[in-house]
Amino acid sequence: MMEIGSSDLPQAALDRIRDSFARQGLMSLLGAELAEAKAGLVTIRLPFKPDLTQQHGYFHAGGTASIADSAGGYAGFTLMPGDSSVLTVEFKLNLINPAQGDFLEATGRVIKPGRTLTVCQLDVWGVAPARRVHVATGLQTLICVQGKPA
Amino acid sequence: MMEIGSSDLPQAALDRIRDSFARQGLMSLLGAELAEAKAGLVTIRLPFKPDLTQQHGYFHAGGTASIADSAGGYAGFTLMPGDSSVLTVEFKLNLINPAQGDFLEATGRVIKPGRTLTVCQLDVWGVAPARRVHVATGLQTLICVQGKPA
Amino acid sequence: MMEIGSSDLPQAALDRIRDSFARQGLMSLLGAELAEAKAGLVTIRLPFKPDLTQQHGYFHAGGTASIADSAGGYAGFTLMPGDSSVLTVEFKLNLINPAQGDFLEATGRVIKPGRTLTVCQLDVWGVAPARRVHVATGLQTLICVQGKPA
Amino acid sequence: MMEIGSSDLPQAALDRIRDSFARQGLMSLLGAELAEAKAGLVTIRLPFKPDLTQQHGYFHAGGTASIADSAGGYAGFTLMPGDSSVLTVEFKLNLINPAQGDFLEATGRVIKPGRTLTVCQLDVWGVAPARRVHVATGLQTLICVQGKPA
Repeated sequence: MMEIGSSDLPQAALDRIRDSFARQGLMSLLGAELAEAKAGLVTIRLPFKPDLTQQHGYFHAGGTASIADSAGGYAGFTLMPGDSSVLTVEFKLNLINPAQGDFLEATGRVIKPGRTLTVCQLDVWGVAPARRVHVATGLQTLICVQGKPA
Repeated sequence: MMEIGSSDLPQAALDRIRDSFARQGLMSLLGAELAEAKAGLVTIRLPFKPDLTQQHGYFHAGGTASIADSAGGYAGFTLMPGDSSVLTVEFKLNLINPAQGDFLEATGRVIKPGRTLTVCQLDVWGVAPARRVHVATGLQTLICVQGKPA
Repeated sequence: MMEIGSSDLPQAALDRIRDSFARQGLMSLLGAELAEAKAGLVTIRLPFKPDLTQQHGYFHAGGTASIADSAGGYAGFTLMPGDSSVLTVEFKLNLINPAQGDFLEATGRVIKPGRTLTVCQLDVWGVAPARRVHVATGLQTLICVQGKPA
Repeated sequence: MMEIGSSDLPQAALDRIRDSFARQGLMSLLGAELAEAKAGLVTIRLPFKPDLTQQHGYFHAGGTASIADSAGGYAGFTLMPGDSSVLTVEFKLNLINPAQGDFLEATGRVIKPGRTLTVCQLDVWGVAPARRVHVATGLQTLICVQGKPA
């Protein structure tokens, strides 16, 4: 079986993900960047700005969830057929440490690929020059919709 | 036992929630509005704009999650002591219909209040003139942190 | 749209569920009983016995989860085609009060039926002569597998 | 920081867990065995018997959930004070492959220990002589209750 995260994507697959990411208005509003995309593994970064905070000045869980959801969705999408589309069925997130740092880094990693359903592990870190703290971990179920534009 | 959602909040409690909501940079970036706050029940609205979309033009699940998380957090907060603070422990969201409409409306409703932990039901609707569609449902666990500013 | 829980099932559908339930070895080991089955709504009861406890003498969360999962699965199954089968994709359960009483009563209620995926709300109560306490609430995602015996 | 799963437990801690496990009537009814307990990592095995099945003859998700919940609960418990008790706040489980094999093996691993709340990753494998299949993965939130017998 394919080793998740070890294979580079073909250029066409990479383009498909970059195009789709660029159409996500929310990623652009938040200021999120697609940092890495390998087969079954996608990383998204979100630099800190006051616009992203909750009431105590940390990153709002909604921002954390937004990049975690997109990272997982695209991680699953890397393993789906070219003419298909991906939708999130559900996700669950545990917020395990205050979400702070110069940026958040969210990783989606496929645990179980499937023709219809794909399950991903979601992890988010808060990154500062001297430290990297695990701020959230979660699970996500995706569905592959055949024959729908990405 | 108190009937959730039926009691008006004292002005001080309402002010505390409005102040806290106003400090959430993300709510302002998204354009979310605090629509209603009663004891154990809070509603937040999010008008549509292209900045909030995922790749197919619907509301991104991250926006849906953001207002659902805040609605639940504040619903729990209405029942917590005045000198306490609320943090989300975890939440889970099922995305059951495409998130579209003139605006999203997220409701957080306390199912189980507690001294330390509070559990909320989260629901989000997509609202247009002629229809109101249930787009997401979820559960959220909150923790009350004593003696921390809101 | 059909009102969940208000319609009696045709006898053939009821028989299909009773037959399937009878084949669940675990329900019989636990001593669980199929109490009610309507369209989109199924209730299962689990009488207390010391064999079902966790370390403090309450019902173990695993027993609570077992009847909640079966109740949701069969609730979804009532709305699926006769030649299909149902599998649980995932579920999440919040344990909100100590699970005690003469018996547990678990209800699965379809929130969102679908051709492929169905989402159910799960609730469990601890029932004693003088009280009925909400002990768990959850969400469940089911998948309908076509052409597989029930 | 302590490396989860690498440290042997003191005999007193091991005894505390074995005693507690022995008081879980459900584990004994199911036939589950405490296979390993290290600091922050606990493994429980559940040999197959027809009494544990769902309608297709696989292990019922309730049995899978039961041993996963206990494994996570005890994994968290290994890191809690001697006079405390552990309760499950919530858990979520994705069922990613048919649960079959000679036995199931559930591992609970602490991701985030805490004075009040602890978060665990739950994984279950179906084990047969020639194969070991990942059948479920999940997340669990535990609460440490001070001064309550284990």
